[in-house]
Amino acid sequence: MNRCCPLANVRIVLSHTSHPGNIGATARAMKTMGLSTLYLVNPKSFPDHEADVRASNARDILEQASVVSNLEEALHDTVLTVAMTARLRNLSHRILDARQAAKALLEHASNSPVALVFGRESSGLTTVEISKCQLTVHIPTNPDYSSLNLAAAVQIMAYELRMALTETTLIPPQQPAYQLANFQEIELFYRHLEQAMIDSGFLDPKQPKRLMQRLHRMFARTQLEKEEVNILRGILSALEKHRSA
Amino acid sequence: MNRCCPLANVRIVLSHTSHPGNIGATARAMKTMGLSTLYLVNPKSFPDHEADVRASNARDILEQASVVSNLEEALHDTVLTVAMTARLRNLSHRILDARQAAKALLEHASNSPVALVFGRESSGLTTVEISKCQLTVHIPTNPDYSSLNLAAAVQIMAYELRMALTETTLIPPQQPAYQLANFQEIELFYRHLEQAMIDSGFLDPKQPKRLMQRLHRMFARTQLEKEEVNILRGILSALEKHRSA
Repeated sequence: MNRCCPLANVRIVLSHTSHPGNIGATARAMKTMGLSTLYLVNPKSFPDHEADVRASNARDILEQASVVSNLEEALHDTVLTVAMTARLRNLSHRILDARQAAKALLEHASNSPVALVFGRESSGLTTVEISKCQLTVHIPTNPDYSSLNLAAAVQIMAYELRMALTETTLIPPQQPAYQLANFQEIELFYRHLEQAMIDSGFLDPKQPKRLMQRLHRMFARTQLEKEEVNILRGILSALEKHRSA
Repeated sequence: MNRCCPLANVRIVLSHTSHPGNIGATARAMKTMGLSTLYLVNPKSFPDHEADVRASNARDILEQASVVSNLEEALHDTVLTVAMTARLRNLSHRILDARQAAKALLEHASNSPVALVFGRESSGLTTVEISKCQLTVHIPTNPDYSSLNLAAAVQIMAYELRMALTETTLIPPQQPAYQLANFQEIELFYRHLEQAMIDSGFLDPKQPKRLMQRLHRMFARTQLEKEEVNILRGILSALEKHRSA
């Protein structure tokens, strides 16, 4: 159990996985999102070279993985267990979507271990396995082709867990790399632009229509920076100068 | 273009993919979420047996994929292009997280093609490739290990697109008041602007510095509309014409 980081309390449990490549890809998917605790219930082949290859630099997750012989061992000590289901079966369990399930898991993971359980590649979890879990989670998919790869399903859940943890705060508020132009600088630019348009005959001051208004709207959307105003005014000056030369 | 289903207007573009397995896994990731349009820019090996194997029952996506020789072809006709970036580089572009980017893409996909662009497995997109896009998207990851597999990144984005679709289906697609300029129109404008800057002496083609890059960045933020491109090119033409008169 880990009180400092809820993600460390989230176990990913793979039951009876056939393809070792999927175990490796699962490790990588987990590590990219900050998960680290992997349980393997009766994997067909593990350890396995293919798992190592697909794990890339997440082999530490494989090395620390717990290989157990039944689901009960993998769920030992957990306070919330969520079963992944590909089909919206007439299940007795409450079904959450991936986002809701991630929130539910994290809510409890601050204090205690929780588990997210994935079944066989071909047939998913058995009814008996599902009955050992408290909730089921379904990832919304294309109804005509819902065959998510096992590691892809883990990736989506791991991503939702990370998103739930951070509520998108992982991207630090962007410090504007450049300084925005102030009101006066922009006004001077507009006047410069308007004069250049008049001098060149593009804008008829007697019939201005809504041209300046449209340009205002466009540059307002841009949120011009100081240097950009300088560049734009530089271009205008060069074109005017060249013209009068 | 497809007005009935926004997901059909979302292109997944993979640039210079090394591992055919990732192309197959991408096709499967796409199809599970209802995406179908795949562009491959100079893939190292395609078609390929490994791609077919990993695609599972999504081989139809591979069969219909467009293989092109440069990014411009893949972006033809799109009105919004989003570049995937693994690192939070000091980029000039606005950075969205996966959820925000999915919403932005879907907003425009009701009416026109949009693209989500992924780079090489090893190094991501080049600066030049990113400069051809309007927004960048970053998937929040573990800062100590952010190495998402290519197909896993596609899976997360495809999932977020489907989630965004589910959330927005109750809201009627908003008709944008103005029509966005497409990729070619914007490219022609850039060429026009560059030539005018060279002719007027503002830009020295032997020492271009990063001037065009800065202008790209500025107009990418603006998300130019068709009529705005026409106005801007009209201003340039008037200034040039007046000059040569």
